[in-house]
Amino acid sequence: MVKVCLFVADGSDEIEFSAPYGIFTRANTPIDTVYVGDNKDRLVNMSRGIQLYAKRSLSEFQSTEEFVKEYDVAIIPGGWQGSLTLSGNKKVQEIVKEMYNKPGKWVAMICAGSLTAKTSGLGVKTLTSHPCITKDLQEAGYEWKNESVVVTDNLITSQGPGTAMLFALKIAEQVLDKDTYQKVYDSLEMP
Amino acid sequence: MVKVCLFVADGSDEIEFSAPYGIFTRANTPIDTVYVGDNKDRLVNMSRGIQLYAKRSLSEFQSTEEFVKEYDVAIIPGGWQGSLTLSGNKKVQEIVKEMYNKPGKWVAMICAGSLTAKTSGLGVKTLTSHPCITKDLQEAGYEWKNESVVVTDNLITSQGPGTAMLFALKIAEQVLDKDTYQKVYDSLEMP
Repeated sequence: MVKVCLFVADGSDEIEFSAPYGIFTRANTPIDTVYVGDNKDRLVNMSRGIQLYAKRSLSEFQSTEEFVKEYDVAIIPGGWQGSLTLSGNKKVQEIVKEMYNKPGKWVAMICAGSLTAKTSGLGVKTLTSHPCITKDLQEAGYEWKNESVVVTDNLITSQGPGTAMLFALKIAEQVLDKDTYQKVYDSLEMP
Repeated sequence: MVKVCLFVADGSDEIEFSAPYGIFTRANTPIDTVYVGDNKDRLVNMSRGIQLYAKRSLSEFQSTEEFVKEYDVAIIPGGWQGSLTLSGNKKVQEIVKEMYNKPGKWVAMICAGSLTAKTSGLGVKTLTSHPCITKDLQEAGYEWKNESVVVTDNLITSQGPGTAMLFALKIAEQVLDKDTYQKVYDSLEMP
């Protein structure tokens, strides 16, 4: 069974955080919220005021290898300040690059979280993000696609809170078996 | 400007909670998370393991009148255990009934949260909910509509996590001015 890491930082977006969390827990797939920041008790100040506890802290991991051995999927939510923290963190960058280059692993980014594709130097050609960083990504040489969710190799990217459920479902579709995916999909009452 | 109450209890659903929270905060509309339960520090154990702090507690309010004077919109998320707590709480029932009967006020329920329409004795004819409580509502005399979001008078109901964004947007559309609504809608990158 796959194990999922949902990164979170102060300033991460509540909706983009909750969608993958809610979908993988419904699938009974292990998902850890992993905090990147300085609060010792892992209390996260989300982008619009919600305060919640993450389960783990990135500082617990001694090496990229240890992290990549434990997790099969790494998800990076948006929210402007959270995206700057996650995309600017050297350990996150190394993990994302290592997982992107390793068969069977997946990385997923939404909204401004897609900045991490750039800062990690993935060298991927095609992706999407919130339009507020389109120019930034294009100037860095990426082809930016105006689609709700884009899958390029084992990188999944998406646009914003409005596409968060489609984003989370696309990750689930790639990494879960068909029956589990269908069961979760049916439980959500998608429009 | 309207002021929104987002009820929350132990066992409330993370996605259905986050969607209206994220949308009304984006609209710069005051929204308070109001906890119904016994934890004195208002630490809420959500349905799938997230622990977060609510801003206020229902126990702070001395009367239904005080509550209804302060809030214009009351939102009830789903999540099975949370729905049982909210729909079974006498103060919540009185508030919901009072607001439903008062011009200019709105009540909104999603997923199993729609149980509250029944327990509050709203006498409304048409609504929707998660299909898991369709029979329960039909036997109580309600016409259950198989639509993502249903608006009946000043009651807004919806089906589940997959419709949470449409639910929150429909509430916003009813209670915000057109420009604010459009600005928020555009920022979400809806599919």
